[in-house]
This record gives sequence, C-alpha cells and structure tokens, in this order.
Amino acid sequence: MRTKAAVALEAGKPLEIMEVELEGPKAGEVLVEIKATGLCHTDEFTRSGDDPEGIFPAILGHEGAGVVMEVGEGVTTLKPGDHVIPLYTPECRECASCLSGKTNLCTAIRNTQGQGLMPDGTTRFKMLDGTPIHHYMGCSTFANHTVMPEIALAKVRDDAPFDKICYIGCGVTTGIGAVINTAGVEIGSTAAVFGLGGIGLNVIQGLRMAGCDMIIGVDLNDDKAEMAKKFGMTHFVNPTKVENTVQEIVNMTKKGNDQIGGVDYSFDATGNVKVMRDALECSHRGWGCSVIIGVAPAGAEISTRPFQLVTGRVWKGTAFGGAKGRTDVPKFVDWYMDGKIEIDPMITHKLKLEEINHGFELMHEGKSIRAVVEF
Amino acid sequence: MRTKAAVALEAGKPLEIMEVELEGPKAGEVLVEIKATGLCHTDEFTRSGDDPEGIFPAILGHEGAGVVMEVGEGVTTLKPGDHVIPLYTPECRECASCLSGKTNLCTAIRNTQGQGLMPDGTTRFKMLDGTPIHHYMGCSTFANHTVMPEIALAKVRDDAPFDKICYIGCGVTTGIGAVINTAGVEIGSTAAVFGLGGIGLNVIQGLRMAGCDMIIGVDLNDDKAEMAKKFGMTHFVNPTKVENTVQEIVNMTKKGNDQIGGVDYSFDATGNVKVMRDALECSHRGWGCSVIIGVAPAGAEISTRPFQLVTGRVWKGTAFGGAKGRTDVPKFVDWYMDGKIEIDPMITHKLKLEEINHGFELMHEGKSIRAVVEF
Ligand SMILES: [Zn+2]
Ligand SMILES: [Zn+2]
Ligand SMILES: [Zn+2]
Ligand SMILES: [Zn+2]
Repeated sequence: MRTKAAVALEAGKPLEIMEVELEGPKAGEVLVEIKATGLCHTDEFTRSGDDPEGIFPAILGHEGAGVVMEVGEGVTTLKPGDHVIPLYTPECRECASCLSGKTNLCTAIRNTQGQGLMPDGTTRFKMLDGTPIHHYMGCSTFANHTVMPEIALAKVRDDAPFDKICYIGCGVTTGIGAVINTAGVEIGSTAAVFGLGGIGLNVIQGLRMAGCDMIIGVDLNDDKAEMAKKFGMTHFVNPTKVENTVQEIVNMTKKGNDQIGGVDYSFDATGNVKVMRDALECSHRGWGCSVIIGVAPAGAEISTRPFQLVTGRVWKGTAFGGAKGRTDVPKFVDWYMDGKIEIDPMITHKLKLEEINHGFELMHEGKSIRAVVEF
Repeated sequence: MRTKAAVALEAGKPLEIMEVELEGPKAGEVLVEIKATGLCHTDEFTRSGDDPEGIFPAILGHEGAGVVMEVGEGVTTLKPGDHVIPLYTPECRECASCLSGKTNLCTAIRNTQGQGLMPDGTTRFKMLDGTPIHHYMGCSTFANHTVMPEIALAKVRDDAPFDKICYIGCGVTTGIGAVINTAGVEIGSTAAVFGLGGIGLNVIQGLRMAGCDMIIGVDLNDDKAEMAKKFGMTHFVNPTKVENTVQEIVNMTKKGNDQIGGVDYSFDATGNVKVMRDALECSHRGWGCSVIIGVAPAGAEISTRPFQLVTGRVWKGTAFGGAKGRTDVPKFVDWYMDGKIEIDPMITHKLKLEEINHGFELMHEGKSIRAVVEF
C-alpha cells in the first residue's frame, strides 16, 4: 500500500513529506494506522545529525497512537480495530531480560531495531523508486501507517484520545516511571528535578502522585516555573541566581534533627553531564538516589569523586521510565482517563503532517512542551 | 595514666614507640585496654602523608579489640570487663542518619572525629611534654589503652580471640557487609571482585555466604588466586593476560537464554578509579549493581558514559560495609565463632608493638594479608 510520511532523507535536512510504499505485516507483525504522534527531542537529535548512530533515509517518530488495521501470521494478542501505542522498548516476555523481572530493557529485537530494520532484517518502507527507508526506534510514527512487531505494541482502551495518549508512548511514561519504577520514591520524600521541559514536568507529576513533601524544580529559565507549579513543584531554583546550586538545595532541605541536608531523590532531565553530577551531589548523604533520564551528547561522560558514592549516594539511570510497555502503558492510559495524571496542558501545539518541520522550530524556540501531529 | 603507643609524629615518618599520657574517660566515654590491632592500608594512607586530611601528631590504628577498663559518667551500655571492638563508624541511634534506617553513616560525632578530636573538641592523649596527640578515626588502636565514646564501641562475646576479631573492626565487616547490606546479593547470582587483597577476600567469602553461583576474582597478580579460591572464588581473570577485562567477564557470564552477559554484582576493592569503571561496565545491562569499596587517591574521579546507567546499571558505594557497628559487629563475631566466616588464614603475621613499622613494610611488599599487633 501507499501512505504519507515525513521522511528524513539526510542528516541535518528538514523532513520531506512524501508518498511512500509500505509492505504489509509479515509473521508476528502488525499494520497500524497512526492517528497522532508527538515530536520529541530524540527525533530531533537524530534528524539534526547529532546522533552518531542515526541512519538515513528513515521515517522518524516514536510517540504515537493509532489503530490496528491488519495483523500478520501468528499474531494472537491484537486484532484489527484495537487501539495501540507503539513501544520503542518492546516487551517480548520471553527473553532473559523480560524474564528477569528486574528490567524493562527487552532484548528480543534490539539488534535489528538499532539498525533501523524489522526483526527479519529488512524494511517495510520504500521510496516510490524502490529505495528502502529505515525504521526508527522500531516505531516510525511520522507516517500515516506503519508496521511494527506485535511485541512492540501496547493495546489500550478505545475511549482515550489519540492526540493525548500518544505522549504516553514516551515522555509521560519516562518521567512518571522514573519516579515510580526506577527510584521507587516513598511518601514524604524530598526531591529535586533538573530541567523543567516535558520530561521534567512528568517527573514532577510523578513525585506528586508519590506523595513527596518537597518537589524542587531547577531550570535556567524562570518562565518554566509557572507550569511546573501546576504539576506539583513546591520550590524553584534558578542556577543563574544562586551561588551554588548543590549547596542551595542542601540548605533548603535541612530540617529538624537533620542538619546534613540533601534531597532523598534527584532526577536529571537535561542530558547535560555537569547537571547530572549536580543532581547526584545534592542528594542526601547516606541514602540519596539520583536518576539520569536525559540523553547526553555522544561521547559525553559523567564523573564525580567516588567519595560521593562511598558515603551512600546511589547513581542510577532509566530508559522509558523502567516501564514494561505492554503491561504498564495501558495502566498509564487508565490513569490519564481517571484524571490521576495530566497530559492536556503539555500538548501545546497541534500540527498537520505538512507542518512537522515547524514543530521542530517550536521545539528549538522553547515555545512548545509537546507539539503533536494529527493525521 | 601512662600507656605505650606507636605515634605518628609527622607525615611520611616511621611511627615512634613511646610512653604517652592518657586522660581518663569523660562523660559518655570509655577507657579500653587494646589487646590486638590490625594494620590497615588506611592507616598507611595517613602515615605516608598521602591523605590530604591527615593530622599529626596522631595515634593511628582503627582495627582493634580489647576490654573495657573504666566508664565515664552516664555510660550505661558498657561496664569494666566487657569485651569490645572499636568502631570508626559509630552508631548513636539518635541522629537523623541512624534513625533513617537507610544508612550506617551516623553523624553524631562526625565533625570532631574528622578533626582528630573527642566529641568535646579535645584530645585524651598527650606527649609527656604536654603536647596534645590527635585521635585517629575516633579509635587510635595503636596504643595499649585508648579512650572512645560509648557509641563507638561494639560489645562482643567474651570467648572470641582478640587477635582475630580485631579484623572485624574493619576489613571483614567492610567486605562481607558490602555484599549483604549494600549490594543485597541473592542466591544464584554472579559476581566479580576486583582486587584480591584483604577486602577482596572478605567480599568473596560474603558472596559464598550469599550463595553466588559464579564468583570471579580479578587481580594483576596470579599468586593471589590460590588464597581467593579457598575463600570461594570460582573463576580468576588476570587483566594483564586478557585483551579486555570487561569483555572477558561479559563473555564468561553468557549462559543459556542470556547472551548479553555481565555479572549481577561487581565490587571494586582496589581504590583505582579506572578499575571502578571496569567494575561498573562488566555488570549486566538492565540490573547490574556495582559497589565501590576501595578508597581512591585524593582528587581522583570516577567516570563513565551515562548510557551505562540509563541501560540499567546501578553505581553504589559502601563504607564499613553498610554495617551498623553496635548492632551488626557482635553478629559478625558470632558468625566467626560459629565457623560461618573465616578470619584465621587472613591473619598472616603477628607482631609486637615495637615491630609495627615492619608491619607496614610487609604490607608494601604484598607479603601480608593482615599483620596484627598484639599487646
Ligand atoms: Zn520521545
Ligand atoms: Zn524481552
Ligand atoms: Zn581498616
Ligand atoms: Zn547516629
């Protein structure tokens, strides 16, 4: 069949809207009509050419929601008409990682996914001249239709709006999951969140759900504070306005019998390795836990004195919020529909596929939290 | 009173054996007759002048065992005749850290201890000419008698031999505690231990107690393998004899359905920050947990790509094995007496106080695991 897609032909070039050929689903695969897709910094990281592992031509996009149109041979858990969210972290429930019960990082299709290919080592997309177009993060949601493995689709309820729940396919789950799954934050904790973009806001609402007493937001831009407060931030620190951000947070969290100070949990949602260090070091001696969420530039390294860890701090990271996609994503959709989590205020712009490059401009200008393309 | 001590007069000089003045215990303090003390790399780190926070003159030593001779006002948990192990990590059971239940890093006397002083800001030791002599790590066990805070003494059973259980005051608890308290190793795990000195051997016997399936020892010196095997090591890697230590360990641990490889737990007992990185990176994607035990040189920093953490590895550290001294040390002594843990083969040399400088030579020559001074 033919479908319409925004294609990344070359690193650093705007996406081109074009008709492409899409082959039907093979065994274990599913054809999905994408109804909405968010534009994420990760897409832009690859589009811009900053991603050293970027492969072109490719159809980017990984935050989608849609409807199953056709299933390939052997597919048993999905049928035409099912509403689904694509998962860039699949959940096969059979590999050593899935079976460990300790991680969401399923490895069933990791190698081919990293190469922009379907599990059989080929692509389903082609240019009209026959040139193969690579898949992206196993999703390629910047197309009106896409083909995905069954294990990389979360079946969700039918009454949830595509233009909101598409964000559960990335930022919402990443931010809230980092709090719930990776950090395991307890009621009454204190926390600091570095970076108040989309991920940071979702970390904040995760902390609010988890019953945190103090939720300290950190951002270079004062304008970010207002929205963050709406999501649950209780205190704000602008690093350009204090002498030492770590010391400021340590001082803010001293209380009663505890004159050491430091947050119980901290989260980096900036991707800046210096900020990751601050996040670790402002966490509490003895038990502070710091979680890296942001994606750092290629080659960048985190560092600290080992003393920081020897005195009880724990350094962790999270991918897709530690969430097992097929199991947890439907639950996040329920939480959204039940009003437990907010998404609507974060979807700041709606675009048509033809306007997708404008969406990346909005991202660069810091004007959008999430721009969503609707088909 | 007067007692005999090995005094560190200046950084880098041999210890001098001399008579010193020891003031009796003040309120909350206890006079202890030291019966035996181990010589530790940490003492040597300070003696040599490498420790930027070293204070002189001082009586070093922190791995002791002895008998209570006299208690100061208000001391309720100890009485003359009690057998005790000095604790460089006290357990006050009242500070925010002790009460958190999340850490052993009691802060009750941290500031004065770091300054080589008793909690009231003075020293109990003096030269015969009246010059104050600093305490060390709150213990100063290189003296036949010492004064310590009640909260820094673990009461232990009377039938345990001083020349063995003194090592529980440092290396034994640090190594086994890192496994049990900090890492929380489960039965059937795989683990790697970098550095097969005293701490490394104790990590290994901790892993054996914890029921590990594979215990991989890593050391530059093949001669260390024999003793490590006796403590439970199942595999040995000499980094000078393989192309890439991390890859070697990853390959060794691939099995069955799990072709990713990597150990479930790794431990650095070298203090070398490059080794700490290898230890992290040879741990399993998704859930590997790496624990830093070794003390790095002043100013040294650990580093890695954040990707290592984002893909599920956890970086931790441990001090005194996460053990709460007054609570856990008596239990370790019981385990030794019950034959659950071995100490005897690690006490390779017995010295008199007058021979203490020879003990540091043995350490440098790599000839001793533990040299113990008996009074
Ligand atoms: Zn995303
Ligand atoms: Zn899997
Ligand atoms: Zn020691
Ligand atoms: Zn305490």
